[in-house]
Formats: sequence, structure tokens, C-alpha cells
Amino acid sequence: MALSGFFNPKSIAVVGASRQKSKVGYEILKNILDDFQGKVFPVNPQADSIEGIKCFADLKSIGEVPELVIIVVPAGIVPEIMHQCSQVGVKSVIIITAGFKEVGEKGKELEEEVKRIAKRSGIRLIGPNCLGVIVPGNKLNASFGGKIPLEGSIGYISQSGALLAAILDAANASGIGFSKLISIGNKADINELDLVEALGDDEDTRVIAGYLENITDGNNFVREAEQISHQKPILLIKSGNSEAGAKAASSHTGSLAGGEVAYESAFARAGIIRCNSIKQQFDYAQAFADQPLPAGGKIAVITNAGGPGIMAADAIEGLGLTFAKFSEETISKLQEKLPPAANIYNPVDILGDALSDRYEFALDTVIDDGNVDAVMVLLTPQAMTQPAAIAQAVAKVAGEKPDKPIFCCFLGAEKVGEGIKVLQKANIPQYDSPESTANVIKVMSDYVRWLSRPKRIVKLFPVNRRKVENIIERHLRQKHRQIGETDSKEILQAYGFKTPEGSIARNPDQAANIAQQIGFPVVLKIWSSEIVHKSDVGGVKIGLNNSQEVRDSFDLMMYRIPRKCPDADILGVLVEKMHSTGKEVILGMNRDASFGPLMMFGMGGIMVEALKDVSFYLAPLTADEAREMLMNTKTYKMLKGIRGEEGVDIDAIAEGLQRLSQLVTEFPQIQELDINPYVVGPEGTIPIAVDARITVEKT
Amino acid sequence: MALSGFFNPKSIAVVGASRQKSKVGYEILKNILDDFQGKVFPVNPQADSIEGIKCFADLKSIGEVPELVIIVVPAGIVPEIMHQCSQVGVKSVIIITAGFKEVGEKGKELEEEVKRIAKRSGIRLIGPNCLGVIVPGNKLNASFGGKIPLEGSIGYISQSGALLAAILDAANASGIGFSKLISIGNKADINELDLVEALGDDEDTRVIAGYLENITDGNNFVREAEQISHQKPILLIKSGNSEAGAKAASSHTGSLAGGEVAYESAFARAGIIRCNSIKQQFDYAQAFADQPLPAGGKIAVITNAGGPGIMAADAIEGLGLTFAKFSEETISKLQEKLPPAANIYNPVDILGDALSDRYEFALDTVIDDGNVDAVMVLLTPQAMTQPAAIAQAVAKVAGEKPDKPIFCCFLGAEKVGEGIKVLQKANIPQYDSPESTANVIKVMSDYVRWLSRPKRIVKLFPVNRRKVENIIERHLRQKHRQIGETDSKEILQAYGFKTPEGSIARNPDQAANIAQQIGFPVVLKIWSSEIVHKSDVGGVKIGLNNSQEVRDSFDLMMYRIPRKCPDADILGVLVEKMHSTGKEVILGMNRDASFGPLMMFGMGGIMVEALKDVSFYLAPLTADEAREMLMNTKTYKMLKGIRGEEGVDIDAIAEGLQRLSQLVTEFPQIQELDINPYVVGPEGTIPIAVDARITVEKT
Repeated sequence: MALSGFFNPKSIAVVGASRQKSKVGYEILKNILDDFQGKVFPVNPQADSIEGIKCFADLKSIGEVPELVIIVVPAGIVPEIMHQCSQVGVKSVIIITAGFKEVGEKGKELEEEVKRIAKRSGIRLIGPNCLGVIVPGNKLNASFGGKIPLEGSIGYISQSGALLAAILDAANASGIGFSKLISIGNKADINELDLVEALGDDEDTRVIAGYLENITDGNNFVREAEQISHQKPILLIKSGNSEAGAKAASSHTGSLAGGEVAYESAFARAGIIRCNSIKQQFDYAQAFADQPLPAGGKIAVITNAGGPGIMAADAIEGLGLTFAKFSEETISKLQEKLPPAANIYNPVDILGDALSDRYEFALDTVIDDGNVDAVMVLLTPQAMTQPAAIAQAVAKVAGEKPDKPIFCCFLGAEKVGEGIKVLQKANIPQYDSPESTANVIKVMSDYVRWLSRPKRIVKLFPVNRRKVENIIERHLRQKHRQIGETDSKEILQAYGFKTPEGSIARNPDQAANIAQQIGFPVVLKIWSSEIVHKSDVGGVKIGLNNSQEVRDSFDLMMYRIPRKCPDADILGVLVEKMHSTGKEVILGMNRDASFGPLMMFGMGGIMVEALKDVSFYLAPLTADEAREMLMNTKTYKMLKGIRGEEGVDIDAIAEGLQRLSQLVTEFPQIQELDINPYVVGPEGTIPIAVDARITVEKT
Repeated sequence: MALSGFFNPKSIAVVGASRQKSKVGYEILKNILDDFQGKVFPVNPQADSIEGIKCFADLKSIGEVPELVIIVVPAGIVPEIMHQCSQVGVKSVIIITAGFKEVGEKGKELEEEVKRIAKRSGIRLIGPNCLGVIVPGNKLNASFGGKIPLEGSIGYISQSGALLAAILDAANASGIGFSKLISIGNKADINELDLVEALGDDEDTRVIAGYLENITDGNNFVREAEQISHQKPILLIKSGNSEAGAKAASSHTGSLAGGEVAYESAFARAGIIRCNSIKQQFDYAQAFADQPLPAGGKIAVITNAGGPGIMAADAIEGLGLTFAKFSEETISKLQEKLPPAANIYNPVDILGDALSDRYEFALDTVIDDGNVDAVMVLLTPQAMTQPAAIAQAVAKVAGEKPDKPIFCCFLGAEKVGEGIKVLQKANIPQYDSPESTANVIKVMSDYVRWLSRPKRIVKLFPVNRRKVENIIERHLRQKHRQIGETDSKEILQAYGFKTPEGSIARNPDQAANIAQQIGFPVVLKIWSSEIVHKSDVGGVKIGLNNSQEVRDSFDLMMYRIPRKCPDADILGVLVEKMHSTGKEVILGMNRDASFGPLMMFGMGGIMVEALKDVSFYLAPLTADEAREMLMNTKTYKMLKGIRGEEGVDIDAIAEGLQRLSQLVTEFPQIQELDINPYVVGPEGTIPIAVDARITVEKT
């Protein structure tokens, strides 16, 4: 696999190895020596030997090139050691030492120097400021995180070393196994993307999990993760989602889309499963590591008590999963063998006196039912219950019928302890509540649905790119970041959008003339690049039905607005045909610094801010994704038509989103964009972009 | 305390005591004998002695009256034993035996018989179909749920016996203590209300917790629980809230699901803290039992690692809690003593090498800060971390400064195990993640806010009750459950609502005359008690601007509607003034079978169904509660006025809700009621009930 110098080295040098037990330089060396089978070279000019092993004064004096070098010396000396690595020809280095970027400007410079040396000499680097790397399968514990865990199939990447230590501590207690654990520290060279790729290629890893505080290269990360998610699930905790990321912006889309939304969209696109806590992450990870994927979300529940069965039912329904409807055959089988008081429908209640034989029979029967995708086995420790024997029965069925996943929830602690150990040994996931069990099944069936999505095909519409290029170039030359309504609409027209008829009037008569030509009713809008929110200053007047009304409104605007906005350069008034039939929606885009253009859809008009009924997705959009954006809002129901009202042309809105997605993908200069309102009529009509606003920036 | 015969008996008889170890009759007797200090009388005509204790043939032959009788005999014999209890003069009985209401019609009859005997003889009854009662402080384990747990201050009521067994098993492992545990089974006599009252009075109980599948007498339960919540918190799991769960519930314990919304409202009114899982419930219960209440939601976080600190920050912000802003003094103190690399602002990062002295200093410092309401102490087990010593330091500060709550989150398992034990002994709650810790603080500070609510004062408006009485009586006499628009509006008028001016016309000229008098524009509405959805049959015509339009519309309705509804008795057409300025909202009420009238507020028109932006609360409403109902919707923002638009008269809507609340409280015959739309204008205007519909029923 990639990065094998880190994961499967034949020889390791520990530079900064120490004799003092309280030091990290001792701890790491000791952890390596405890398990590692290859050669180990402590490097420390002040010692002859450590833990009975010969110690070297420097890397050169080892006399051979260690495949992996671990650096534990004080931060200030790290560049010198890096030079030594370069001279000797080392290719893989882990810098444990802290005191770099994370401590401020000086540390940052030091880190830059280290990066430069690495880059120049072709050295790959994990850290600095990290805990190290652990590979149980290769008996490699090059870390100071604790003792080596069991071998397993979860590959873990952590941006917090301390958290990794806590995970190790918890995993060791509950027998969770890992393929690799990597603390990535400051990510001076190797980052989450490199490691997700490496774990994606790694045969020993079935599940990729990680804790991240930020993602360095969002765009590439999404692209790669999307590929890898097809091979194995990626489970990430992304913390640091509070406030800071949200960018202050003038558009609706900007204020509604925080950094958090971008991460949500990116994870959705890439099939990444987001976890909200370590507990949840390992709940999921164990299921993915040890159980087959369910074909769908139809669950059978077996329980020896009513209460937990009801709680499971609540959770299953609450999560949008379904109770499997048993076949006639299953029901008659259950009826025949279970006691008369048992409930033979789902959830199957095999009663408080159920022993292992009844559990085995019920599980064996329902798992055969073609309508069942997954089985949840609940157990409450009652007077006669024998948890260990029941766990063995579950393990037996699981062994015989390995194609459907089984999830256990043995409630309690002391009495069920032995049973839980039996389950762990048999690799059957055990959860602490019906709710978390249902959650795991939900996440697995969502992942299955994601896997079976049709191939993403982004439609390219024929457009007039040159025209857009010209308008944007002109604005950038004039250092106008805001593109006003008229130019914004020209850009949209170039990409196939229809906008209302109309033009600019400089005086009341001209306004009345334009209105006469395009036909009443019309709308007047003040035309000034300084006035962004026109309606806030009385700069929009709708529903004008005759020339007199148009003249009056024109003069009123010219009289009132300069008093409200004395600095605004007012160029005239836009007279437009009023499109009042149809529903108003908003289409928008906000460019995320890390993940690129984030498309938005929602209810239009002033409602959008009050109701926040909006949905987001990363561009470029496929037709399915655009439609899904619509369906993810409550507005959708209204657009489809309620109470006998005629619905609007849903596909036309979806097409609008796709065209917009093409525009912002082809023009990275566009930072923000709003079409609000986008007025949509019944099927077969063409929607109108009634108002629009675009912000650009040099790229 | 009340029900002391169950909780502190001097003598106990076990009727159906058995020698056979696998039987419940043995298990219960054994559990009692293991700990109980009073007299114990096994009753079984087939045995001379059990476990070395003299056995009696029946209750009479004991020769004295046992204070508590536990019945374990088969269901069919239970009535006979109840007769014996009655003859001997027993006052408290627990029926463990199953096979009653929960198994169908025959069992139900048996249960009714038992209830009758109990009632007649003044016997109080727990069960049947229950696990029993446990009182650790009195060394009483009259149950077959497992071994007696530690003494503590949590009183637990469970409608699922098996779940109680699981709770006991888990509690014993983690050292959670209880004042009382009661399995209420079928609730033939004593129900959750009796027990919540008893635990409310109980000096040994600081926290009341429970698992319920239904609430027998919702109205009284809310009233009592509201009183008790002022003394001690009530933490309830209410399951069976999904359709599937309700079905599972009804097939198991013979209970019906209440409306989920009604439960939410009832719990909010009564200050009951709803828990979604057993884990969450005990997370909360431990905090309430062992820690003082925080004065507010301002949290200080102390951590020895960045990652968990960030996760805590996400959780705190996500839950709407706030980071305490430290005083100058706190900051300079922290700065002085903590290492330079530490973060002295909140979250306080005392670094990975922090020992107990640094934890103690930081905790001791921040807890003194007046801006801090609660402290969260995070620990990750890193190389140098000493969890047990740190736990001791935390316990020390907690002991010295007991007025502010401290919550710990030691991450991991093995390495932190000793530390967690130290915390348990010191009664400092320990949680498994920053998220669940933050959740606990959120729930506590919400409870504190609930406690400090102003006294509930329900305003009574002067109304014309007699008029409403007459209208309702007339409809009930005529067996009309639906009260049509005109009568509904008269009822509303009697309660101070304004309705549009207008009256009934029998011919086109009359209609035109009425319109002339009230002024244009007007609305015509077909008037027939058989036509409920008027607009569906073309029976509503809005925006009529002159007499001719009124005449034309009248005739069109008279021509068209009889063809659509040949059976409808058309009495005329209602001519009403049209109120088009203002926003449309909906006010409504739906009477819940258990909790009574449930008020509703939401956005009006057809939007209400698509957006489901509605809020509910139990009547009678105070002014604060009515306003809160408004604020709990997104519509509220729009009503307040957004983007320069003028807002509407919020208080007028709140008053409307209060008046409606008074109406439905004073007339229990009213089952459902809708005012839709209720048109509200700017401040100072009077809202208009444009359309209304009332359903009544004999009570």
C-alpha cells in the first residue's frame, strides 16, 4: 500500500530516544520495543544504550538507512535532524515534537522550514505535533498513545492526538480492533486526504474512520472520498462547526449557508457518514466492520420484553425505517413453535421466560424471511434469562446465515456482561439502547442507498460563455464586485434563463413609454449599483396598471430615495413586465472557500429568511441532485400543488438549478449569486428570473 | 409518606411463596429474606417451611395482620386471595401475577373483579402483572428484578417490569442509588399519578424518574406534576409515541397511545423533563440527584486537550448554551499560574501534561468567577495524565465549593477507570462524551428557567356565556355535531371576537343591498349547513366590487351549486365585507382525550398544511403562554415584520388565543375549533375571524 514506510517498515530509528521514563522519547521507544519485530535504532548522543539496546550518536552512525525515522527532539533541533534524514536518504519521518504552527508565528516559521527540507529531499512526513502511528497487524506501536490495541479492520485518522489516546483506552476495554491508527498532528505534509487514500487502498482496512477539525483541500477530498466510499465506508467526526466559518455576506444564500452547510453537502456528495460523537462513530464502525450490509431498511425485532420492543418501534419509525412485514410462512412457523402468549408479529415478543432455544428459533426463522433486511435482537435480564447462552445462540445463527446483518441490544450491565463478551468474540455488534441500535441500521441502509445511486451525469447546456466572460471582465476591470440587476440578468440570459421584458428609463415619460410597449401591469425598480436591497429603501413598486401610475411612482422614487441614500449614484429606473402568476422560489449559490460552489434552493420572496426552508448541494449538479434539492424542502409540497391547486413545473426549476450550477462551475470568479424571486408557473411554462444579483472576485 | 404500607412495612406476607428455585414465588421470598429486617410470612398450604421459615396455610392462620401482602399465585386464584386480604384487614397488596388485562377479555374481567374487591375493602393495590417494589433505605426488595441496589435519592416508576430489571442491572454496575423503585404493571389501582405524588412527598427522593407507556388521567397528572416539579425534577421516558410503538404498546399492556403533541405540551406545562432513552434519563438523574442547580447556562470548560475542547464548544453552541466570559481577575489568576502555552480563555486548555494540581487550580479559580454557572471538566488519558489523582482534586474543590455544579467527562475506559470510581464515590456525575455532558447542563438550566417562570395567571375576559350555551344546546338537540360558519361566528362574537360585517341574502337584490350598506369589496359565501367545504363547490366568491358583480355571483351560485350538491338545503348567500389587508393566521383547538383542549397556532391559508409551521399548548393559556406559542413558530418572524415591512399586532393574536382558550375551557362540549383565516393587521387594529368552524359533542 501507499505510505508503507510508515505502516510496514523493516527498521526504525527514534531520534531523541530517552532513558527517562517520564519522557515521550522513552515512552515511544519502549512501545516500539514491546512489540516490533524489525530493527530498532535509538538515537541519542548522550546515551550508549537504552533498554539494553545500542544507542547511536546520530542517524549517520547507524550505518544503514532506517526505513522510518521518529523525531522526538525539541522543536528547535528538528530542522537539523531533518537535514540528517535528507543526507542519509530517509524517506519516511514522523515528527512527534510539538511547538510548531500551533504555538504561533515563530513555530509556524519553524514548520515551514521543516516542510521545505522534506519537500526538497522527497521525504514524506507525518506531524509535527502528533502522537504517532500504530499498526497492530505489524506489531508496530510508534506512538505514546498507550498500549497496542487488538488487530481489526478499522483504520483511524485523528487530528487530535489526545482524542486518539482516549479512543485507544476505550477500545482496549471493549475489544475493538484496528488496522491502523494515525495521529496527523499539524499536517505539515501528509494530511487526511493522503491517509484516506492510503486506507482506501489498504487491504486490511474495511472501515475508514476519523476525527477532523478541518479539511485542507476540500475539493480534492470530496472527489477522492467519493471514489473510496464505493469501496468502503468513511465515518468522520468533523468538529469546530460553530460560528467562525460562516462568512458575512450580502446575499440570502450567503447568510443562509455557513461553513457547516458546505461540510454537510460535501459529505453527502462523497457518501461520507458523519458522526456526532466518538460513541456514535464506534457504534457505526463496529457494524460496518463486522456485519454484512443490509439490502434495505426493513427490520425484524426479537425481544423478551414489551417495553424495549416499544422503544425500538418508536426509534425505527422515528428514523424512517420500517418494520418488516413477515411472510405467511414465517408467521405460521412462529405461531407453531412459540408459546400462545408470544407476539408472532413484528416486533416478535418471545416473552420474559425465553431461553436460548426460543431466541435461536425466532432468529433463525425471521432471518430466512425475504422481507427482512436486518434483525435487531433485544434482551432484558429477567429472572430466568441466560444472556450468555442466548448470545451463543445468536452467534450460532449468525455463523450459519452470514448474509444478513444482526444487531444486538442486551440491556443492563452486570447480568448481561458475560453475554456481551460472547457477542464481542463472535463479532456481533452490541449496543446499549434500542435507539442507538436503530440508528446504526439507519446509517447502514442509507449507505446502501448511496451506493446504489445511478452514475452521476452532469448535463452540459449550450450557452453563450463569451458574453458572460465579457461582463465579468468589465466589472473586475472597474473593480466592481457587485454586478447589478441588469447585467446579472444578461449573464443569466446567456445561460438560457428567461428574464422579464423591460428596460431602463431616465425620466417619467420614458418610463411610461416603456410600460406602454411591454404592456401593463409593470414593476419599477430603482437602478443604482450602490443600492443592493432595493425594497428596503422603497426602490421597488409593483402592480402599476397605467401610465399615470408609472409616472407618479417614478417621480416619487426620484424624490425620496436620494434623501435616504445620499451617496447612491442613481442611473434611472428599470421598467419591467410584472409576472405575478406562478410561485416564487429562490435559486442561489455561495462559493465555499474549501469546497467550491454551494447551490441553494428555497421558498422565494421575503419568506425565505423567516422560514429558512432551504436546501444546499455542491455544484456541479446532476438532474437527480437538483430534484433532490427541491424535495428536501417543505416548499416542495406546495410546489407540487396542495388542496386542488395546480402544481408548478418542478423539472423547470431543477433545470434552472443545473444551468446555474454550470454557470458557477465555468466561472470561478462568481462568488455569490441569487435569483430571487424565480417565478415558476404550471407545467410547460418557462420560469422567469425576476430579480438577480451576482458578486464576483478576481481568481 | 403516603403509601407507606408499600414502602416501609413492618411485616410482609408472600402468598404463593415457593420452594422451587426457578419460581417467582421463591425468588421474591428470597429477595425479601436477604435484606428485610421485619417479619416475613410465607403463605403456601403445601409447605411447612421455606428457607427455614415457618410457612402458613393461609393469611388467616398467621394470627396477625401483615402490613403488606405480595401475591404470586396463579391469576385465577387471585380474587380468592384478595377476599382473604379483605377478611383479615390487609391494607396494602402487590399483585405480581400476570395474566390479567394484558392477555385479553377474560383477563380483563378478572382484573375488574380484583379491582372491585380492593375498592370495597379499602385495599390499595400495586399491579397486577408487575415486578414488585424495592426500597433500598428500608432494606426492602419485594421484587424479582434482581439484587437490591445502593441507597440513593432517585425514585423510579416503571410501566415495564423487564426494563426495571435492566435498569437495576445497569445501576448496580455503575453504583447508581435509588430511594424507591416501583413496577406499576397494569395499574389496576395505584397508577403513575399516585406514585409521583408519593415520591413528591418522600423526603428520601430528590429526583423522580420513570418509564411510562401511557398516562391514565392526563389532566390531573399535569396539574399534580406541575406542583411537584417545583419541589423536585420529574424525568420521564414516554414511549409508544410512534404508530408502530403504539401498536406494540396496545398489543402488550393494553394501553392506548396518546397524541404525541398532547404529551409534549403537557410535559412542557408541568415542567416534566422528557428523556429519549434510559441512558439519557440516568445522565440527567445523576446530575439532579447529586449536583446543585446552575444559576444559568454560562459554562466554563477545563480540558487537557484541544480536540475534546472543540467538541464541547460545538455542543455548547449547538444547544444554545453559552461560554462563560471570565472576569479580569480570573484571567489574570489563570495567566499567572498556568504555563504560557495554556489557553487561559474559555475553554481553558491546561495542556496534555496537566497533573492534578493544575486541574485543581484551574477548577478552583473558574468556579469562583461570578460569570460562571457550571463547570465542565474534560480529561483525556495522555501519557502523563493521572486520572485518579485528578478525580480527587475535582472532588476536593467540589467539597469546598458546593454551590455550583461540576460535571466531569473523563474520556476512555481502562486508564480512566479508577478516576471514574473516585468521581462516583464523590457524587460527581461523569459522562462519556462532551456532547452528553453539555446536554445535561442544558436540561438543568432549562429546568431552572422553568422554575423561575412567573406565576401562571389566566385572564378571564367578560363574555356572553349564555348565548354560546344556547347555540351549542340547539345543535346538540338537533344532533348536529358540526356548527356552521354563521353560528360559529356568533359563538366567537360572544367571546369578544370581531367577525366581518354582513348578513344573509335570499335573492340577488337583497345581496346587492347588503353589499351597498357594508361597502365594497364584498365576499359571497353559500349558506347551507350541509356544505362544509364551501370553496370546493364554488360556494365562495371574493373581491366583488359593485352591485352588478354581486347580483351575477349570487345567481351563478344558485344555478350551479344545486347541481353539484342536489341534497343540500341552500338557505341563501352570506354577503360579507372583505378584509384583505393583514396577514392570515390560524387559531385552533383540538380536544385530547387525556389532556383536554390543545390550542394551536400557525400560519393561515393553505400554507399551514404544507409547512406545518404550527405550535401547540394546553388550555387554559396565560398571556405569556399564548405569546410563547406565537414565538415557537417561524411565522412569528414574519408577523413581526421583516425587510422593512410593517409587523402585525402580536398581542392581539395572543389575546385571541386566550379568548379561545377560555371558550373551550368553559365549554367542554366543543371538540374541535378552527378560525382560519384569522386576519391580523398592524398594531392597534382589531383582527377579524374571517371563517370559523366548530364541532361539538354531548359531554
